Amino acid sequence: MRLTVSEIASLVGGTVRGDGAVVIEGAAGLGEATPRDLSFLANPKYKFQLETTRAGALLVPPEVETGKRPAVVVKNPTDAWAAVLEILDKERTRRPAGIHPTAVIAAGAKIGRNVTVGAHTVIEEGASVGDNTILYPRVYIGFDSSVGADCLVYPGVTLRERTTVGNRCVLQPGVVVGGDGYGFSFGAGRHRKIPQVGTVVIEDDVEIQANSTIDRAAVGVTRIGRGTKIDNLVQIAHGAEIGENCLIVAQTGVAGSTKIGNFVTLAAQVGVAGHLKIGDQTIVAGQSGVSHDLPPKSVVFGTPAQPIKDEMKCQAAVRQLPKLLDEFRAIKKKMGWGS
Amino acid sequence: MRLTVSEIASLVGGTVRGDGAVVIEGAAGLGEATPRDLSFLANPKYKFQLETTRAGALLVPPEVETGKRPAVVVKNPTDAWAAVLEILDKERTRRPAGIHPTAVIAAGAKIGRNVTVGAHTVIEEGASVGDNTILYPRVYIGFDSSVGADCLVYPGVTLRERTTVGNRCVLQPGVVVGGDGYGFSFGAGRHRKIPQVGTVVIEDDVEIQANSTIDRAAVGVTRIGRGTKIDNLVQIAHGAEIGENCLIVAQTGVAGSTKIGNFVTLAAQVGVAGHLKIGDQTIVAGQSGVSHDLPPKSVVFGTPAQPIKDEMKCQAAVRQLPKLLDEFRAIKKKMGWGS
Amino acid sequence: MRLTVSEIASLVGGTVRGDGAVVIEGAAGLGEATPRDLSFLANPKYKFQLETTRAGALLVPPEVETGKRPAVVVKNPTDAWAAVLEILDKERTRRPAGIHPTAVIAAGAKIGRNVTVGAHTVIEEGASVGDNTILYPRVYIGFDSSVGADCLVYPGVTLRERTTVGNRCVLQPGVVVGGDGYGFSFGAGRHRKIPQVGTVVIEDDVEIQANSTIDRAAVGVTRIGRGTKIDNLVQIAHGAEIGENCLIVAQTGVAGSTKIGNFVTLAAQVGVAGHLKIGDQTIVAGQSGVSHDLPPKSVVFGTPAQPIKDEMKCQAAVRQLPKLLDEFRAIKKKMGWGS
Repeated sequence: MRLTVSEIASLVGGTVRGDGAVVIEGAAGLGEATPRDLSFLANPKYKFQLETTRAGALLVPPEVETGKRPAVVVKNPTDAWAAVLEILDKERTRRPAGIHPTAVIAAGAKIGRNVTVGAHTVIEEGASVGDNTILYPRVYIGFDSSVGADCLVYPGVTLRERTTVGNRCVLQPGVVVGGDGYGFSFGAGRHRKIPQVGTVVIEDDVEIQANSTIDRAAVGVTRIGRGTKIDNLVQIAHGAEIGENCLIVAQTGVAGSTKIGNFVTLAAQVGVAGHLKIGDQTIVAGQSGVSHDLPPKSVVFGTPAQPIKDEMKCQAAVRQLPKLLDEFRAIKKKMGWGS
Repeated sequence: MRLTVSEIASLVGGTVRGDGAVVIEGAAGLGEATPRDLSFLANPKYKFQLETTRAGALLVPPEVETGKRPAVVVKNPTDAWAAVLEILDKERTRRPAGIHPTAVIAAGAKIGRNVTVGAHTVIEEGASVGDNTILYPRVYIGFDSSVGADCLVYPGVTLRERTTVGNRCVLQPGVVVGGDGYGFSFGAGRHRKIPQVGTVVIEDDVEIQANSTIDRAAVGVTRIGRGTKIDNLVQIAHGAEIGENCLIVAQTGVAGSTKIGNFVTLAAQVGVAGHLKIGDQTIVAGQSGVSHDLPPKSVVFGTPAQPIKDEMKCQAAVRQLPKLLDEFRAIKKKMGWGS
Repeated sequence: MRLTVSEIASLVGGTVRGDGAVVIEGAAGLGEATPRDLSFLANPKYKFQLETTRAGALLVPPEVETGKRPAVVVKNPTDAWAAVLEILDKERTRRPAGIHPTAVIAAGAKIGRNVTVGAHTVIEEGASVGDNTILYPRVYIGFDSSVGADCLVYPGVTLRERTTVGNRCVLQPGVVVGGDGYGFSFGAGRHRKIPQVGTVVIEDDVEIQANSTIDRAAVGVTRIGRGTKIDNLVQIAHGAEIGENCLIVAQTGVAGSTKIGNFVTLAAQVGVAGHLKIGDQTIVAGQSGVSHDLPPKSVVFGTPAQPIKDEMKCQAAVRQLPKLLDEFRAIKKKMGWGS
């Protein structure tokens, strides 16, 4: 990458402050940036870092002052940052290409145009892979499963049989799609397996990150809605339905048959119990445990989760509780109230 | 599948209500079922769904009324449901077969009759695989490890050296058996690795689901008892012993050397500390942290876990605490109690 | 292994108690040891086990009495135990050797002396592997990534492109290094991916255990400091920096850009929020949630984490809260304070 500040402004639809002729060759955080790097500040809260950064230029929203330093001003600097990083990504990231001779592709599998099938990747009978999709080495696409067009499927991903992945999806290393749901019937002193004959549908523009697991439904479908982004080590149980454009952060678990709306955020290490309905645009704070239905636009925290303001009050109150107990005992004694 | 309601009743040992000649071709949840599908209701709590379901026939326990709709009545509808799904599973699920030419099988490995070894699967020296077992593609069976008969081992499973898996076990994708336990000795300013020379024994009829990890013991054995079922992303540490027929739900962790009895349920995201004894038939509710031994038939919740009734009372009390603090302060002021 | 007690004492720099001529052939825990086994006791708390053990000899610190039984006395019995297990490990553990013909090694990859490349392992262009390193079967080393000398990389490990692993590192099965960080920019009704163009640096003597995930930075580096040991199913997010010689126990998650000092212990199932600084030698107890910076040598517990003594007091107080509420209500009634 070798762009002037003016060229970057033009690329991201921003305006220039200061010297637009300064040349930028990389991108870095404010703390690590050199005079050749672009850096960015989206949150005015971290404005103090501008005093010490060595960055050659900045991406900022209008309300952040930047002094003499060259800057590109945009309404959404995070989005502009993404646009610049896309250029760097193309430069830096080498990917496999072509059909590797060690790949095992069943005779009846349908492979689109311009598909990459990496070394030791296996595609079973009845499976299909859409145009321009890159399957890295060591991927498994099961019987009758399909991956759409323009996907990235990293090493170690397993799609079991009859699962469906949409277009423009990204599956990071180690993701498992379509493992059996956790269903057993107890009787005669043992747990009998309930065959999981359903499947998984992952809609377009979904990303699932490393070592997360999406179980197949007992019957019917486990669904991940369009545009939803799932972080590492997340568990989605059988028959769960995740809406569109949700954010499900690391190590969260969603139990069976729960329906989650659109634009829902589950912060890290959250647990959501089974058979619940979580309304659109709900936010669940980290480490919470959700055990009841939530209406749209809920903002909850705690185990069991309650409205975040109430939870914060309770947490603060608990910290005063040891003192309260001492005072209460002292008063009881003084007043002769007995125990 | 194409069975009449009467044939299904005969299959599952149930009795027919209504028209036994109705033909059923699939199975689905009450919400998704079509007139060609069988559906089921085990829990009378969800009885209201019977009003709107389009299911062609129902599996129900005797106490659930079904009106004119054809039904098969059984004491344990979940078990009957499993029996029907087994038929569908055989129909729908294609599996690999035979020894794939890209598999790498050491000369000294013992392979039983009718074994499947998928593409790119590796079986090291001294390993053995029992009759009828299916190893999917991309499985690793380490030196001197053994897998019993009639097992299913899905893609990406790793059995490190000297580990043992019984008969009729299922290992879902990405399971790791026999990774080193977490043992280090601190001295001279660094953590020295304590070699983990023990092993793992997984008894018959165990299922371990996607991306779960069972560590090998430092010395001795990490044991998973007969009939125990482990969900996704569960961690079992070195030297732990899990009893028979336990249910260990997603994202739970059991620390080193802990002994868990038979028929114990650890609900999702539970943590059990090391060197504990958990009695038979104990139930630990979701997200709990167990830090003490538990007698048989305990039912506990919370961090640290306590009897569930006590924990529920404490949780309810905490929600009243902010109000209590306000009242207490007002009374203190009114009474002139100071501080 | 076949060593006398005296030979063991000499090996570990200890002194002999009792008959130094007794022959030892294995090692086991106190409960499982036979007369041919060495066992050890580091913590005097478990001294009662010495009454029933059948162990042929013991490794103990000076303060533990051992009666007539042969013993080797050392200051740090855990360290001595590690030394003995290293001998057993060499005896028992078979490993792959050589370059397997099914491995796929790019023409431009640099492979050191005495390197093992297991079956179906893939090494991409620009990658390098140091001397004596063992790559088990089914490993993926991405473009321009490097693994140092004397490493063990177990089956199913994925190193994505441009990541760096130091010398003497151990990566247990299923570890993912360099998966994309979780970064998206919201706008126009959707989440746009922020390309993660940074990388991961894992310094010397690090161990990362089964199915843990270390994300690459958005820009810059995610760093795991020298000598740090990471347990199973741990998540380290993009741009986090973990110091030297830390212990990060199972199922813990560290969010993005957080800086963790040296010799920090995060016990199991801990969550640490993003953009925090955690001081050296801090200990965070299991299942805690850390939401604020912590000074060096903090010892914290709870969600949100507070000094462990305060948290223990709060937890004890909460258990008295239901009774307090009852008493308070009774007094209010008696005193006519109304509600």
